[in-house]
Amino acid sequence: MSESPKIHAIIPFRPINPKTRLSGVMDQEERESFARAMLGDVISVLHTAGCSPCILSTVPFEYGDVTTQIDTRDLNEALNAYLSRQKMPVLIIMSDLPLVTPDAIQRLLSCTADVGIVPGRGGGTNVLYVRKPQEFRVDYYGASFCDHVRIAEDAGLSYEVIDSFFMSTDIDEKEDLVEILIHGMGRSRCFLQEIGIQLSLEHGRVGIQRSAHE
Amino acid sequence: MSESPKIHAIIPFRPINPKTRLSGVMDQEERESFARAMLGDVISVLHTAGCSPCILSTVPFEYGDVTTQIDTRDLNEALNAYLSRQKMPVLIIMSDLPLVTPDAIQRLLSCTADVGIVPGRGGGTNVLYVRKPQEFRVDYYGASFCDHVRIAEDAGLSYEVIDSFFMSTDIDEKEDLVEILIHGMGRSRCFLQEIGIQLSLEHGRVGIQRSAHE
Repeated sequence: MSESPKIHAIIPFRPINPKTRLSGVMDQEERESFARAMLGDVISVLHTAGCSPCILSTVPFEYGDVTTQIDTRDLNEALNAYLSRQKMPVLIIMSDLPLVTPDAIQRLLSCTADVGIVPGRGGGTNVLYVRKPQEFRVDYYGASFCDHVRIAEDAGLSYEVIDSFFMSTDIDEKEDLVEILIHGMGRSRCFLQEIGIQLSLEHGRVGIQRSAHE
Repeated sequence: MSESPKIHAIIPFRPINPKTRLSGVMDQEERESFARAMLGDVISVLHTAGCSPCILSTVPFEYGDVTTQIDTRDLNEALNAYLSRQKMPVLIIMSDLPLVTPDAIQRLLSCTADVGIVPGRGGGTNVLYVRKPQEFRVDYYGASFCDHVRIAEDAGLSYEVIDSFFMSTDIDEKEDLVEILIHGMGRSRCFLQEIGIQLSLEHGRVGIQRSAHE
């Protein structure tokens, strides 16, 4: 499907004690399984979209035959070191985007700007497509969307904002699980159903509940 | 820009005491002005996208030379009565989507299915494009996205889900204002700035604050 087959896609991933804001509905072991399920959804879509995924982890980690790079530095340092070594376009995609679709990835890869930026909610950056990795650097945390726009501008790089609900939906809070149960079709949704998490409706608002028999 | 010029776009709007969940940061008069600003952003984009907007209000209301229909019934009854009278494709768009862009509207209008559905967060439906209005009906509130999918299926209508962050972002809560300050470029953003609402960064999370001199 991709115009430039086998674009390298790097996926930062934290295998140990991830997604702590979900502690109210999942214990640590469940959160680790859930994070792995979301990663699986992302990897599956990247393969379909013609990308070559690579996991960036701070600790040794295996996921099928997907390449893993280990870097103990913080996210920005590790990614910027990675970018500085690349000569071909790179996709940087977060692992907690289980709703991502091949169509959405294709729209991002089709953008003609030097940098394609997919905003997350709250000023975040969920996916970046960087055509000239040695001329760009990342700055995650805080209002990273604004930072990435500024970094592109300062480097004289053109950028385009890609408008995608499914890519903008990162899963951090209990309320975010609603989106997986409504729109998800992959491993993450199955995992939630397996542990008894389901939709609830209270006062016309959609939420989630976990059935008592865990 | 539109393939079928002057597609009718109906915009339900509540002029009196709207957006009560923003009461913590705006008084009633401000919320009414803010709702009007968001409506203005939506109308402006609809014009650019080649649509003919019409406001659906429960009380008499004027916005420039935009047509207003008054219907005192509840949202679903009023919209379904409206749909039953239409013979041409209809766009139904909520008024609290100030980030909507002409591109996003064009993507929706370009979908070939009988019904184009734009999900909002939390199971909502933010925009609908209904090609055969007399064969479809709306059912807002609760998990309306799921309801609209089911209504289309039951009526033998094809549907397509349109993936747009900007159209999925409806403004209900204080936290949603962050999106306007980061991504907005219209009246709504100006209004927030005028009343002193600005971004804040606490513990790496982006929020909003209102400066003391109101």
